[in-house]
Amino acid sequence: MKALTYQGPGEKAWADIPKPVIDKPTDAIVRILHTTICGTDLHILKGDVPAVTPGRVLGHEGVGVVEAVGPAIRNFKPGDHVLISCVTSCGSCPNCRRQMYSHCADGGWILGHLIDGTQAEYVRIPHADNSLYPVPAGADEQALVMLSDILPTGFEIGVLAGKVKPGDSVVIVGAGPVGMAALLTAQFYSPGQLIMVDGDSNRLEVAKRFGATHVIDIKTENAVERIFELTGGVGVDVAIEAVGIPASFDTCQSVIAPGGNIANVGVHGKSVELHLEKLWIQNINISTGLVNTNTTPMLMKTVQSGKVDAGKLITHRFALNDILQAYEVFGNAAKEKAMKVILSQ
Amino acid sequence: MKALTYQGPGEKAWADIPKPVIDKPTDAIVRILHTTICGTDLHILKGDVPAVTPGRVLGHEGVGVVEAVGPAIRNFKPGDHVLISCVTSCGSCPNCRRQMYSHCADGGWILGHLIDGTQAEYVRIPHADNSLYPVPAGADEQALVMLSDILPTGFEIGVLAGKVKPGDSVVIVGAGPVGMAALLTAQFYSPGQLIMVDGDSNRLEVAKRFGATHVIDIKTENAVERIFELTGGVGVDVAIEAVGIPASFDTCQSVIAPGGNIANVGVHGKSVELHLEKLWIQNINISTGLVNTNTTPMLMKTVQSGKVDAGKLITHRFALNDILQAYEVFGNAAKEKAMKVILSQ
Amino acid sequence: MKALTYQGPGEKAWADIPKPVIDKPTDAIVRILHTTICGTDLHILKGDVPAVTPGRVLGHEGVGVVEAVGPAIRNFKPGDHVLISCVTSCGSCPNCRRQMYSHCADGGWILGHLIDGTQAEYVRIPHADNSLYPVPAGADEQALVMLSDILPTGFEIGVLAGKVKPGDSVVIVGAGPVGMAALLTAQFYSPGQLIMVDGDSNRLEVAKRFGATHVIDIKTENAVERIFELTGGVGVDVAIEAVGIPASFDTCQSVIAPGGNIANVGVHGKSVELHLEKLWIQNINISTGLVNTNTTPMLMKTVQSGKVDAGKLITHRFALNDILQAYEVFGNAAKEKAMKVILSQ
Amino acid sequence: MKALTYQGPGEKAWADIPKPVIDKPTDAIVRILHTTICGTDLHILKGDVPAVTPGRVLGHEGVGVVEAVGPAIRNFKPGDHVLISCVTSCGSCPNCRRQMYSHCADGGWILGHLIDGTQAEYVRIPHADNSLYPVPAGADEQALVMLSDILPTGFEIGVLAGKVKPGDSVVIVGAGPVGMAALLTAQFYSPGQLIMVDGDSNRLEVAKRFGATHVIDIKTENAVERIFELTGGVGVDVAIEAVGIPASFDTCQSVIAPGGNIANVGVHGKSVELHLEKLWIQNINISTGLVNTNTTPMLMKTVQSGKVDAGKLITHRFALNDILQAYEVFGNAAKEKAMKVILSQ
Repeated sequence: MKALTYQGPGEKAWADIPKPVIDKPTDAIVRILHTTICGTDLHILKGDVPAVTPGRVLGHEGVGVVEAVGPAIRNFKPGDHVLISCVTSCGSCPNCRRQMYSHCADGGWILGHLIDGTQAEYVRIPHADNSLYPVPAGADEQALVMLSDILPTGFEIGVLAGKVKPGDSVVIVGAGPVGMAALLTAQFYSPGQLIMVDGDSNRLEVAKRFGATHVIDIKTENAVERIFELTGGVGVDVAIEAVGIPASFDTCQSVIAPGGNIANVGVHGKSVELHLEKLWIQNINISTGLVNTNTTPMLMKTVQSGKVDAGKLITHRFALNDILQAYEVFGNAAKEKAMKVILSQ
Repeated sequence: MKALTYQGPGEKAWADIPKPVIDKPTDAIVRILHTTICGTDLHILKGDVPAVTPGRVLGHEGVGVVEAVGPAIRNFKPGDHVLISCVTSCGSCPNCRRQMYSHCADGGWILGHLIDGTQAEYVRIPHADNSLYPVPAGADEQALVMLSDILPTGFEIGVLAGKVKPGDSVVIVGAGPVGMAALLTAQFYSPGQLIMVDGDSNRLEVAKRFGATHVIDIKTENAVERIFELTGGVGVDVAIEAVGIPASFDTCQSVIAPGGNIANVGVHGKSVELHLEKLWIQNINISTGLVNTNTTPMLMKTVQSGKVDAGKLITHRFALNDILQAYEVFGNAAKEKAMKVILSQ
Repeated sequence: MKALTYQGPGEKAWADIPKPVIDKPTDAIVRILHTTICGTDLHILKGDVPAVTPGRVLGHEGVGVVEAVGPAIRNFKPGDHVLISCVTSCGSCPNCRRQMYSHCADGGWILGHLIDGTQAEYVRIPHADNSLYPVPAGADEQALVMLSDILPTGFEIGVLAGKVKPGDSVVIVGAGPVGMAALLTAQFYSPGQLIMVDGDSNRLEVAKRFGATHVIDIKTENAVERIFELTGGVGVDVAIEAVGIPASFDTCQSVIAPGGNIANVGVHGKSVELHLEKLWIQNINISTGLVNTNTTPMLMKTVQSGKVDAGKLITHRFALNDILQAYEVFGNAAKEKAMKVILSQ
Repeated sequence: MKALTYQGPGEKAWADIPKPVIDKPTDAIVRILHTTICGTDLHILKGDVPAVTPGRVLGHEGVGVVEAVGPAIRNFKPGDHVLISCVTSCGSCPNCRRQMYSHCADGGWILGHLIDGTQAEYVRIPHADNSLYPVPAGADEQALVMLSDILPTGFEIGVLAGKVKPGDSVVIVGAGPVGMAALLTAQFYSPGQLIMVDGDSNRLEVAKRFGATHVIDIKTENAVERIFELTGGVGVDVAIEAVGIPASFDTCQSVIAPGGNIANVGVHGKSVELHLEKLWIQNINISTGLVNTNTTPMLMKTVQSGKVDAGKLITHRFALNDILQAYEVFGNAAKEKAMKVILSQ
């Protein structure tokens, strides 16, 4: 079959490799219908994630159709349309027993990382009973790809960890796909102010259409000053960091009000300076985390009931065969005005 | 009356000053029966807290007897024995309405800081209906002084913010009075391991008697290695920082298990390096804060029912008149084996 | 001044009585701008609430302007426009210290019940610093009257106690003003299904316009069967009882799914049969309560940010002088298609 | 093999039946080392649980050694010593995904109910990876049998659902094995008062030894009056119903303080009268439920760290072969002063 493989730093190939087969009784083989590219895939391709070895098939998001299941699988059968979760979970280790699937002893984020992923014609999904979700009849399957990773990530690690409440002032620093997912799902809790901060004016325009009450362009405005202005000098109840660099974390810690929550969603490559000399007295909270995807069933219900239109995060569509071209577009997101690209076969 | 006053960096005096009087209808005047000295008072005396101006009476802890009340006071009358909370709260501002009394718009930590404090024969307590608590009949009034600040601080900002649960592995870094208060009150929740880290072998001995299951002397052991050893390589569920320096915060972030909580109790003078490049994926939580004292009624019940023996934190007793001598002892805590000193009149 | 007074069962009068005066330092006198009538007032008039004695001025809702304040009042001054909370709270008793203002030792629901209320030209408000809220500049003051009681009641005792979550199936039994308040505020949490049950087809029409996804007319449909049909045989996650009779409570306990919450908002006059022989194994929760109004600041923010249009609960407007006519209309709510009536001077 | 089988109302037999075999890939076969008898088994034997059909092997508690595992089992291998949970959970259905294992779509309480149970030489455990727990090295395996059902039931459905907090006043109505389990585990949270109510003076004596601060013998005292006396007229913060009859539920609803929680643990055979005409205004909470056993790992840690001595619930020990005699003793618990009986082979 065809698959997008990592070939060492800076190198990738749309290569012919053997089709995966059932390895353990709890496996399923899924034929990919729709997949996408994540910012993490770009990091991997740069060589930033040493655990990924040459030959690895990338991708951890997708919707597909079950091709085969191991003898222990109870919830799925060949022909079922399924959502693939970016997090694999065994369901029975101590961390799974407390719903921290992100740190599953035999799973976590392994797809397109430690085992072959979803940017391929077929993928093997371990612990399939826990790691796949049935696609509801009549669902927009391209839109559901957003539920593999970015929607639960923005929701769980941004909105829920940040404890967004009705009437709150919320700032999201970073208008990329995950920041946008936080923007969409924060609205489940009816915040009073929803402020998006970024340096890309196109993305800020999109954020406004997606429900931001205010946007701040760091190319032209001082974000910290503007946020205090918008909040009457108090600061925000919730600050969601969705970039992963010291500067954006710094904006968050500068604008958080006493009693507020900083939810770090960004993937950081280096340490940050935490101003405990100011914050020790401020009764704040800082959370971090990889998505657990334990809210995927809840999110599926909100998509089905029309509470969120996940599909509007998709800006470009390609045939799976044209994935190299899709990488070109996604790799130049600002210029191409790309948010999420969908690859279908 | 006599009072201990700050006279600029490095200077203090046991001076004669005018007795306080009712200023607002919600004030009370309290004659001090027992007070104590806090590590913060030493910081102030060094000149580290510029908001404290010369002439200020220090002290924010104490038990006393009500001498006079303003016309709006409903809960207390002259002659009542009362516990003085280190945090003054109006009860009606937005922060008080959400029980964040630490950030009261007309209060917070002001005693011995922005207004005259408790190291005196008399003290004026603003918002007395919210800031005093009745002393139960027959209570050990010296022991109750521990409820003015250190017991609620260790409990709320350490134990509750750290979300200590039955069976948890908990480390407390810093065996000073507040660390000891966290040690005593953590036991309300029956953790499995309660590890105390310090460099003072006497205090570690005390910690063992107070319920620590393990102690680590950083003068002779590598705390991080030892904690991983004690927790089977997993790390701790809760790490309580009770010192206020980068090194102790660093121990906490090095030993926290995925899903764990770091509760910062220490008062920091400079920033720390937060290793988000490791922690972003660890689903951890960091909390900070000044005590709200909203658990004071709960703590009073635990003291009254014998669940905690607050009095055992007291190592030295003096007459209030001998407060300069008490400062000598408390200022040389290691040498004097001092934890809390009580001053009585 | 003029006031609506209870004169014994079945009797009321728009009478001349003395204008209230400051009695305690924490009182305020408020000139009423807008008030309203509550279903509870009708109960009192029937003689169902024996604690209400003849001569009592009714009413516990309103917006007004501060006329005078006691010497202990810090937050308000004459001329301030204020929202009057239906619950009076001292802010310092043990129940207030845990935000259970409904059971304040020197307050709770006393207005128009144990002390004179708001259906008058002037009202005395005890503990005014805790029991009044500033009206934001430019606010619709008639709409804000909904925040005195019904909006926080529907929200706190229905939506929050019922723990409504994104995607949930929610049923509200009873489309009166408080049921409608629950309907409006449940939408802060983006439930998937929001089913209104009532026997008044006009109110069900209104419920649809207010955001109900489904309505069930118990005059023509079997509510329990229909709810199981709508929820795929599972039942609802949250059932809000907003009537106060055994039949409506029974509907709630019949349709609750395992793990679900029944939030009782209705004021009951007799006991109900609780089917523990079925429910003991169902892992459900039943909550009851009088509103605490601790969410009033949050609700104010949601009104100000346009998240909820409280004014649309108002169906009729009268001059305060025409209050007897307003009682006629409100007492025949079905015929008059009345929800909330506003009385202004 | 030998097994205790239900033979229709009033009839049981220690019979020879075929040894169970692996049926599904996720099964395990466990050789029983220690099992016990539950009050529920007595109910079944009376014919009260029609879902149990003649020939069914009873029992849902035990510790054993793994004999064989299906091909999908990852966590256990033959020879492992395991604790058997009374609740079987697949780990992947919607209820398992929210940790409500009690309502697992392919499990829940099925052992000794819908499938053959643990009062036998061998038992087949479905979904063994989720339904068994490893026995820690050196553990008291008889004591661990208490973790199959009664300790998690008393803890989760009594203590956790009742939200016991430090300093609380707690009443437990019913001093049977589950009430005793609630008594032991409530102490994890350091309540101030722990009042046990029963009519068996021997059990009340035991309760005192197990940590009850007060006991009330309903044969000689009025429980409601006595509880108000003990709580200064306020009532209790938490009332745990551990009998399952209207009278004991009634005691709970009569003594609950405003803001309190009634946790129903008892298995009820008929409905109760709920006094909503008094309770609607009291801001209370009532919870029900079958144990989820999601706290089993936590409880295992508390047993291992010595926080609770589960073994002291055991009063009698028998050889498994003498199970009919053990039923005699357990069926006459009051006369025999029996709490839990252990059957070993």
